[in-house]
Amino acid sequence: MKSLVEIGKSALKAKRELIKLGTKEKNEILLEASKALEENFEKIISANEIDLENGRKNGLKTSLIDRLMLNKERIFDMADGLRQIASLDDPIGEVIRMKTLANGLTIGQKRVPMGVIGIIYEARPNVTSDAFGLCLKAGSATILRGGKEAINSNKAIIQVLKEAIRKNGVDENIVQLVEDTSRESANEMMKMNGYIDVLIPRGGAGLIQAVVKNSTVPVIETGVGNCHIFVDESADFKMAKDIIINAKTQRPGVCNACESILIHKDIAKEFLPEVAKALKEKNVEIRGDEETRKIVEGVILATEEDYATEFSDYILAIKVVEGIDEAIEHIAKYSTGHSECIVTENYSNSQRFLQEVDSAAVYVNASTRFTDGNEFGFGAEIGISTQKLHARGPMGLRELTSSKYIIYGNGQIRG
Amino acid sequence: MKSLVEIGKSALKAKRELIKLGTKEKNEILLEASKALEENFEKIISANEIDLENGRKNGLKTSLIDRLMLNKERIFDMADGLRQIASLDDPIGEVIRMKTLANGLTIGQKRVPMGVIGIIYEARPNVTSDAFGLCLKAGSATILRGGKEAINSNKAIIQVLKEAIRKNGVDENIVQLVEDTSRESANEMMKMNGYIDVLIPRGGAGLIQAVVKNSTVPVIETGVGNCHIFVDESADFKMAKDIIINAKTQRPGVCNACESILIHKDIAKEFLPEVAKALKEKNVEIRGDEETRKIVEGVILATEEDYATEFSDYILAIKVVEGIDEAIEHIAKYSTGHSECIVTENYSNSQRFLQEVDSAAVYVNASTRFTDGNEFGFGAEIGISTQKLHARGPMGLRELTSSKYIIYGNGQIRG
Repeated sequence: MKSLVEIGKSALKAKRELIKLGTKEKNEILLEASKALEENFEKIISANEIDLENGRKNGLKTSLIDRLMLNKERIFDMADGLRQIASLDDPIGEVIRMKTLANGLTIGQKRVPMGVIGIIYEARPNVTSDAFGLCLKAGSATILRGGKEAINSNKAIIQVLKEAIRKNGVDENIVQLVEDTSRESANEMMKMNGYIDVLIPRGGAGLIQAVVKNSTVPVIETGVGNCHIFVDESADFKMAKDIIINAKTQRPGVCNACESILIHKDIAKEFLPEVAKALKEKNVEIRGDEETRKIVEGVILATEEDYATEFSDYILAIKVVEGIDEAIEHIAKYSTGHSECIVTENYSNSQRFLQEVDSAAVYVNASTRFTDGNEFGFGAEIGISTQKLHARGPMGLRELTSSKYIIYGNGQIRG
Repeated sequence: MKSLVEIGKSALKAKRELIKLGTKEKNEILLEASKALEENFEKIISANEIDLENGRKNGLKTSLIDRLMLNKERIFDMADGLRQIASLDDPIGEVIRMKTLANGLTIGQKRVPMGVIGIIYEARPNVTSDAFGLCLKAGSATILRGGKEAINSNKAIIQVLKEAIRKNGVDENIVQLVEDTSRESANEMMKMNGYIDVLIPRGGAGLIQAVVKNSTVPVIETGVGNCHIFVDESADFKMAKDIIINAKTQRPGVCNACESILIHKDIAKEFLPEVAKALKEKNVEIRGDEETRKIVEGVILATEEDYATEFSDYILAIKVVEGIDEAIEHIAKYSTGHSECIVTENYSNSQRFLQEVDSAAVYVNASTRFTDGNEFGFGAEIGISTQKLHARGPMGLRELTSSKYIIYGNGQIRG
């Protein structure tokens, strides 16, 4: 088993080979790898069965077992994912801006690979192939550190990927798996400045916070979404109801699902019973403030904590507000900065909401469920950033790159 | 004295006021503040004299005393700096890209303020006003934590700035000074996730590494520059010599000064004596490899450490290399990723160098001394990033911003 420092050194070597690869070469590897995943699906399923067996023995929750489970369909989906990445535009080499200065220097800013990207994730083995594909297309070497629950599946997938890479005559260490799945290895990985250029944690809030707190390598924080919908006085009721039902119930477990709705007081009496009925039909539990409880029967009193919680479940917090000021105030206080929406027909309020709400994605009259790399047209995503630095919102290939200045001179010296 | 949490809370409040300020209002504050600095220069000098007195008592080095010292000219330069920032284009509000999807959603990516920017710096009181000006123009609230040596100067400057802000009817907490200059306060500031969106350390390598190592808030690493110039076989000798002398001696103490030169072996015998003579005239000490020592007399043998060192002084490391491959290899091994240059007349080598050298600024035939926000035409800079995440190279106003997605819908829900 390679030590992390050895893995880091191999990644530094591999990244220099990657810098020289063109789009065609990268796509060839991706297509070869997708073919290899399909050809070797039985081998991967066998390895996955060991993980599933261990998981059941160790009393893993059913939802985790489901995430961990691979079948032919899921493996073919992973292969399709790689083919899709191959079809995307290559972000590397694009000159973002370029100009010639008075002294004759021509300065351009060019999109270049990040270098080495580390991914720390949990029990989803499909991340192994997805992250490899995205990082490769973005020109970076990848160090993957998946959860111990999926180690056998991950090893099998990596072996298949590496074989495809070698077939293309490229350094197989452009992707590496950390086989030591101890907590110590994760902590060591978070301190690998000089080897890893950026760390992206993918998983639950606990994992993400651990990486943010312990990492000295730059981190992109992803994920947690306490998303709000504010229904303004002038909202179209049917539109508001449809958006709320979609944002809450279409897939409640994901980060762009809605967790709290804010209702303008002047429409609360008319609108709330309507939306409460629709929510009840979808088995959504409502936790509301006193005003909501006056209007809708059987509503549990919402606590401070409820307003601050990403339920990821069929639970919705409701608050009746004075108007847009209180709505913006409430969102500033409780939001995690992921996605928020105003439903309104009022032009000025729509503009104020877009301007003053400080979240990665701010919507007028549309479901928060659209905050997603595929829906935004990026083709694929590595996660959704909720930090301000580097990338904010869905991260596609472009967000996995860095830039450098290239300067063409003819002997200029500084005076 | 406000606690750091109180400062953080005030900053969160102030940032929400800043989001609403237009370019005109921000410029008015900058111009008011620049006037106030000039009008109050004597008050600032008096406070600075206390710092200087304390510094002398505590045996501060002359170079540090010089950095700490303010006089009328330096204060008027600070005021000019703010006026210059007022004259720059406002980066906020620019829509970087925008498109309408098939489902009718119009999605735009808009440049928005970072929010709250923390600056940790040492004994240069001019940073107090420069950082305030840049962050304000970029729409962010600033928390400044300067060195204890400059505390009286910083307090006096902040007081003047705050008065100007109040005169414009804006929350004076858009800039705040951490008056507790203990190490504990710096460490506490590095953990203020939820209050501070990004921390930028400005100062020596020790300070920067401390912030990178201890901060849980996202950091932009600035500064250290072990810059290289590779003189290729086909180089114009006069151009190469001029560039080396400029990059090494025009201002040896700064991060974009050259620290090592690499000479193609086929021109070493002819070129090295020429450049050594010019360096000697500028009192530059040469530390070279065995090959260099064979050609130039009185050269100290360079150690591994010499090649890895940012001398920031009249010292230069030299190595004779086989050619561009070894040059790129050497740079990959020793460079800090700041600025590197190739002097060549060979087209293919120039392209390879630009492509394969992984530094923030890569030059063909020009001095590394140009890596600077002003020289690049950004108008002003907060520092030079040597990390890959978010910003790389000189950071102007644009690099102090974040972005958000704004989405215009008409009732879209996800299917």
